[in-house]
Amino acid sequence: MSWLPTLQTNTPEQGYELAIKLSRMAVKKTQPDDETRSSLRHDYANNADSLTMASHVVATNFQTVAQANNYWRD
Amino acid sequence: MSWLPTLQTNTPEQGYELAIKLSRMAVKKTQPDDETRSSLRHDYANNADSLTMASHVVATNFQTVAQANNYWRD
Amino acid sequence: MSWLPTLQTNTPEQGYELAIKLSRMAVKKTQPDDETRSSLRHDYANNADSLTMASHVVATNFQTVAQANNYWRD
Amino acid sequence: MSWLPTLQTNTPEQGYELAIKLSRMAVKKTQPDDETRSSLRHDYANNADSLTMASHVVATNFQTVAQANNYWRD
Amino acid sequence: MSWLPTLQTNTPEQGYELAIKLSRMAVKKTQPDDETRSSLRHDYANNADSLTMASHVVATNFQTVAQANNYWRD
Amino acid sequence: MSWLPTLQTNTPEQGYELAIKLSRMAVKKTQPDDETRSSLRHDYANNADSLTMASHVVATNFQTVAQANNYWRD
Repeated sequence: MSWLPTLQTNTPEQGYELAIKLSRMAVKKTQPDDETRSSLRHDYANNADSLTMASHVVATNFQTVAQANNYWRD
Repeated sequence: MSWLPTLQTNTPEQGYELAIKLSRMAVKKTQPDDETRSSLRHDYANNADSLTMASHVVATNFQTVAQANNYWRD
Repeated sequence: MSWLPTLQTNTPEQGYELAIKLSRMAVKKTQPDDETRSSLRHDYANNADSLTMASHVVATNFQTVAQANNYWRD
Repeated sequence: MSWLPTLQTNTPEQGYELAIKLSRMAVKKTQPDDETRSSLRHDYANNADSLTMASHVVATNFQTVAQANNYWRD
Repeated sequence: MSWLPTLQTNTPEQGYELAIKLSRMAVKKTQPDDETRSSLRHDYANNADSLTMASHVVATNFQTVAQANNYWRD
Repeated sequence: MSWLPTLQTNTPEQGYELAIKLSRMAVKKTQPDDETRSSLRHDYANNADSLTMASHVVATNFQTVAQANNYWRD
């Protein structure tokens, strides 16, 4: 099964989770080694600017997911 | 209850507050420890570029929220 | 009264001013102390990259405001 | 007269020039002193990353201007 | 044959792969030497912020691809 | 003749090339000296983060060009 079968979600919160998943997947595709990513995670989880940068990526992906779901207006 | 039940808000100002909430939630999901986030907050709240970066994330999320609300034009 | 009663403005220039206001408000919400912000201002107002970063945030907010006003085409 | 009477331009090239103007105006509003800006200009005009950052801001503003002009398709 | 014959893809996952391809192509056009890119890859694949930056570019391109495919809603 | 007569291109690949052109033009307008740009090019073409930043600008401009061409769907 695909890791990304659809951009549709039932709720905004699920859409936000999908945005996080999309953000992490690009990292995983560039650095496939789980252990390396895990150690890097410690770095950026304790650095304010790194966290802000990560939040920016989520925000960008959330734009896409929200639009795909017509902002869950329907 | 969901932390994000809807992207709809009554006013632009509430929409802006929601954009801030969205920006912080991504940080919280990456660094769930309240104390760590609190200490990091001190770092970036006193650094001009960090504040600008944070404002950029809010701006990105505000785009999403504003569009979800049809810019509160109705 | 709300600091953000509407995204509608009469002219593009007023829309640009609103974009600046939106950009600064996120900073203010993160660093509410006026004196601290004032001293930080000196830092980034004299650093080329800081100014470019600030301009990027304004550009992002101006996208939102311009769209809210249908680009003042009407 | 306003420095930004309209987002409409006759040609894409004029639209690009307007995007540059919008990008610089945010800098000017933050650092109004001409001489300071002039000396900072020397800094970033000789730094590859600074130039890339500046180009990113222009790209963001060009999105707005291009959309305002319906991509000069008409 | 073109490396980019179309922005249409059958599935969201293929769209995401295309977004990665678009992100890497700009790098390739700036640094065409395979060996140099390969050695740089090692650098950024082991740096948290570099990976986040790369993920941001993918997110930006994924916005384009997703919109081109009408979010695979049809 | 204008360096940017239109945003319309026949193919996605040509659109991508135009996005690169738009990205470089902003740099050229800020640093018009060919020799300086050429020497800076060496800097950023050998730095992973600089290349990622450049790719981000291309992605932003490609959003504009792709939308101007209705994603080459027609």
